[in-house]
Amino acid sequence: MNNSSNKKENHEQTGAAGQTPVTVIGLGMMGSALAEAFLKAGHPTTVWNRSAEKADALVAKGAILVASPAEAVSASPLIVVCVLDYEAVHEIMGPAGGLLAGRTVMNLTNGKPEQARKAAKWAAEQGADYLDGGIMAVPQMIAGPEAFLLYSGSLEAFETYRRELDVLGASNYLGEDAGLAAFYDLALLSAMYGMFGGFYHAVALVGTEKVEASAFTALVVPWLQAMLASLPLQAQAMDANVHATDVSSLYINKIGFVNLIEASQEQGISTELVAPLQALVDRAVAEGYGADGLSRLAGLLKKPK
Amino acid sequence: MNNSSNKKENHEQTGAAGQTPVTVIGLGMMGSALAEAFLKAGHPTTVWNRSAEKADALVAKGAILVASPAEAVSASPLIVVCVLDYEAVHEIMGPAGGLLAGRTVMNLTNGKPEQARKAAKWAAEQGADYLDGGIMAVPQMIAGPEAFLLYSGSLEAFETYRRELDVLGASNYLGEDAGLAAFYDLALLSAMYGMFGGFYHAVALVGTEKVEASAFTALVVPWLQAMLASLPLQAQAMDANVHATDVSSLYINKIGFVNLIEASQEQGISTELVAPLQALVDRAVAEGYGADGLSRLAGLLKKPK
Repeated sequence: MNNSSNKKENHEQTGAAGQTPVTVIGLGMMGSALAEAFLKAGHPTTVWNRSAEKADALVAKGAILVASPAEAVSASPLIVVCVLDYEAVHEIMGPAGGLLAGRTVMNLTNGKPEQARKAAKWAAEQGADYLDGGIMAVPQMIAGPEAFLLYSGSLEAFETYRRELDVLGASNYLGEDAGLAAFYDLALLSAMYGMFGGFYHAVALVGTEKVEASAFTALVVPWLQAMLASLPLQAQAMDANVHATDVSSLYINKIGFVNLIEASQEQGISTELVAPLQALVDRAVAEGYGADGLSRLAGLLKKPK
Repeated sequence: MNNSSNKKENHEQTGAAGQTPVTVIGLGMMGSALAEAFLKAGHPTTVWNRSAEKADALVAKGAILVASPAEAVSASPLIVVCVLDYEAVHEIMGPAGGLLAGRTVMNLTNGKPEQARKAAKWAAEQGADYLDGGIMAVPQMIAGPEAFLLYSGSLEAFETYRRELDVLGASNYLGEDAGLAAFYDLALLSAMYGMFGGFYHAVALVGTEKVEASAFTALVVPWLQAMLASLPLQAQAMDANVHATDVSSLYINKIGFVNLIEASQEQGISTELVAPLQALVDRAVAEGYGADGLSRLAGLLKKPK
């Protein structure tokens, strides 16, 4: 499989003649979506997964299934890795390290900034270019208009493979520090988890009065949509560290929060997801920020609890 | 002030000849926005607030400031109350109760369902119609295209004053149980608080690497926008109680959450707002739901922790 047309130095010729061959290692829900997007875009796509049967649907669509990570690496100048965690990255890619020279590893595995930096160092030692990525999309969104991906690490790799990256979604390059994509990814995930957590509490609360989740969600979506519009204004307040509000003060929120917590308790549902923000609001008021807006709260997370 | 043209039986005549007189009691940020919306729509608007100086700007725009809640009640067939809490509602409205017969109280004060039901009962005893409302908007959104308000209680009052209610935003009537609007309001607030809490964590996290909140928020908004689209699908899964996922399993989220928590700790910020959802994910996996999607989590809030 290690023929010269797959080597990086031939990438531009390959790109001109047809589509760059791409390898996808890891065929979970996300890896499969990535491989499918490359296939749809006409890239010769080689795949490998620990359990080979996960490749069946992709093979039916034209993917080339190989038997080892080494073969997978040898097949393409661009190696996309999307596995469970960084332990799996090193376990799988380690033995194939000697074949990486002159190729580009694009690692889309979820992890921490430090792990991404370590993987970048390891790839450099193998003579490979390294790009770390964060996928800001669910698998179904890949290659669709709302998918965006964050990249950090080798700028050369980003520029060389920009066309291939754009197959997956809008590409955002954050900088040479390979850890940046993981860092932004985790931060965006925390924003998502917050929104989901609030939603779960809300659905559980109305569920106690037999309101269907779907009927209620028809109200939640426009409401959160409207509240989303406040985030840029709150961000401005944070950057300026000026938290005067003409929306609603922390003191007003403290009063309202008691109703939310008590009503939840009276309806018999757990307040575990909403109580921590109440505690933070209360702390902010106790520290003398009662007249400020909610934007004050982010700064309080910098202090140890 | 208690002249007959302000009585409810004359409302339709007043409506035909001009605009219904409206009273707004409570001129906090929200009450002021409500009064201003009525003024702009051409309604003779009477206002009262404990600290009279809060009415200055409204008076300059044509509002009639009166010296007591009793005068305020006597001025209009529709009395809008928007004060700090239900204790304030009863304190302010109690002495004016005898003047309420034949009028409609529309209470937009934040509270619990039980408090709204009690207020409805009290209003009925005074011979007044009662409509409880939840304002799903910040003051700046009032009378704008994204504001919506939830109402419950007297259907007759809702229908009689529908035109006046629509001045404030889109009107949603939930049912005769006066507690429903407060109930939905609190649930929607919890969804908002969740989204805000996640956002604060995210901003605090990227802030440790000197990323400006505004720059980061330009990524957060489209990301949450995209994730919002998943809520109706999650709601369907909840209603059907079928949580099979082709997005990402609770097990995968459990793995990813460790990165988020560890990275936050390593950057020196508090995990107090995100740790509770991690605990819930871990509990769900421990209870055997690892292969399910996140939609499973709402149901777990019904059980005692």
